[in-house]
Amino acid sequence: MLPDDVLASYTAQITSYKESGLGILELGHRTKLFEELFDDTIHLLRDLLQLPDTHELLILHGGARFQFSMLPANHLPAARTADYLESGHFAKAAAAEAAAYGGVHVAASSSESAFFTIPESASAHYSTEPAYVHYTSNNTEMGTQYERPPLPPDSTWLACDASSDLLTRAFDIKRHGCIYATSHKNLGTAGLALVIMRQDLLTPLRHAAPFMAYATHAAARSRFNTPPVSTILVLKLMAEWTVANGGVERMAALSELKSELLYGVLDHSDFYTALVHPPHRSKVNITFRAPTSELEERFQHEAEEAGLVGLWGYRKVGHLRASLFNAVSLESVERLADFMTSFARRSR
Amino acid sequence: MLPDDVLASYTAQITSYKESGLGILELGHRTKLFEELFDDTIHLLRDLLQLPDTHELLILHGGARFQFSMLPANHLPAARTADYLESGHFAKAAAAEAAAYGGVHVAASSSESAFFTIPESASAHYSTEPAYVHYTSNNTEMGTQYERPPLPPDSTWLACDASSDLLTRAFDIKRHGCIYATSHKNLGTAGLALVIMRQDLLTPLRHAAPFMAYATHAAARSRFNTPPVSTILVLKLMAEWTVANGGVERMAALSELKSELLYGVLDHSDFYTALVHPPHRSKVNITFRAPTSELEERFQHEAEEAGLVGLWGYRKVGHLRASLFNAVSLESVERLADFMTSFARRSR
Repeated sequence: MLPDDVLASYTAQITSYKESGLGILELGHRTKLFEELFDDTIHLLRDLLQLPDTHELLILHGGARFQFSMLPANHLPAARTADYLESGHFAKAAAAEAAAYGGVHVAASSSESAFFTIPESASAHYSTEPAYVHYTSNNTEMGTQYERPPLPPDSTWLACDASSDLLTRAFDIKRHGCIYATSHKNLGTAGLALVIMRQDLLTPLRHAAPFMAYATHAAARSRFNTPPVSTILVLKLMAEWTVANGGVERMAALSELKSELLYGVLDHSDFYTALVHPPHRSKVNITFRAPTSELEERFQHEAEEAGLVGLWGYRKVGHLRASLFNAVSLESVERLADFMTSFARRSR
Repeated sequence: MLPDDVLASYTAQITSYKESGLGILELGHRTKLFEELFDDTIHLLRDLLQLPDTHELLILHGGARFQFSMLPANHLPAARTADYLESGHFAKAAAAEAAAYGGVHVAASSSESAFFTIPESASAHYSTEPAYVHYTSNNTEMGTQYERPPLPPDSTWLACDASSDLLTRAFDIKRHGCIYATSHKNLGTAGLALVIMRQDLLTPLRHAAPFMAYATHAAARSRFNTPPVSTILVLKLMAEWTVANGGVERMAALSELKSELLYGVLDHSDFYTALVHPPHRSKVNITFRAPTSELEERFQHEAEEAGLVGLWGYRKVGHLRASLFNAVSLESVERLADFMTSFARRSR
């Protein structure tokens, strides 16, 4: 889902980008206009994310999936071990990629709760001098989120897959060696990943082909690949929209309000059951059940008919879920809350 | 450059995809509508390329650059050697990626002619049982093109980077183990690669992380990554446009006509010099010089003023170049030919 302003601005620039007479799909990636677009996007995002000079910002092809592999291809030498915190489906997928490059140690897991909790950091058992510690800050499927980053051993650094909550709240950048996020949650459409990487970690620790090395992409200022010009435009428009709407601070406050609204309905209901307990609850993905699967199906059907489409993720997870990415307005969440209340009343 | 029909159709679907009321940028990649869009795209392309059942078609993230690395990550074991035909800048870049995985042997090179020729296949020295033989069918910078695929030793298979001439002419698929092409030349906009891979070559020959293995993407029907929905739509529209305009056969005939027109002007001129001799000439990128660099600059400037923008590639190559991708109409090439003739007359 994209904000209406972003969609309108994008549509206008399909036919003529910045009144150049050339549509965005035809704008060459070696033109001055595109250079400016790319640089503006980087500056906007650096400001929004409050990146310190210690950290580089890359915009790379291949989404977060490629980062699952690229990170260990740079930083997990075959003889070493990286620690992974197993908090869900995507955290497991990231660990599976890493295992192809070196040792992987699961320092903590919430698989016993079927991932409806965040792994307890108190009971995490880190390996001796792990290459890095990887975690997934927000877990979309089951609806859990780290309230604070985990505390890795002093000798190492944190790597974070923040695909679904980057820009929905502030991240303590200095505490991380690497934070990456796909472009299709709070940043626009699919196809890219944002990678925030501490400068000294750009150089790979293991032998890596040029394409696989962060250093290559940093030296090429994220344009080692031909950049997808129109996807970058959407990214820039989303960054501008986020700034115009109060920046990350305001987005975090809205996340708070939006999620409280829905958790409020759930916690005061004997019809719905929230699937995650308060300290582990995600402010981005709210997961819950209705009394029967028939009612859940009717709920989805009626919600769609009421125009609440954008709030739903995919369904194979087997429960109901509202996704409150930044583009989802407080008003539409209020409408969802009202719908939930009235649906419960009607379905009794 | 995209055909006007494609641009118009794309623009209409920004606001409402197939009258669904949902714009293409917001269409979920797990919806039935997108499933159909993706499957249609694959079918259209398989038809256009006349792919036999022996070959799989994948649509992957990361452009051709990623294929430079992915191919050897699957098929170049550390102890083996792959042969590369060095015909230009991108051919060298592909070999540089492969060298990170295993042995690379340059079986033939045209570096002595500064890549203004295709490496002579008669003088190619292949290694003993190479893992594969890689070539670049069309070289955009210097404007050369293989008239026929090279003849590798019987024990091996051909891998081809066809980024700039796939769909501009027919490829003998059965003679290739792998053909790949970026999406932003004849196929739409940047961000993707088309990969045609012989079924038995989908399984990697060396230990590969899941993301790096062709088999993973084949099993996930090219959707191991979240697919960039709007880029896929452009790809589909380009495929439809190619079918509607006579398919690859007609595109090849047009390539013939368009390039002959320009080479005709060059060969009958004592003002311009064509940079490539007939047997090695590209039908896609026509490279030439004017008598002085001042005149070349004026040529570019005046051509742009005459609205011939889309015909020009980037300029760091240091000569003039017209790029005749499929979307460039015969009419606009005729206008360019007229412009060239009149510019030469005026500049004497």
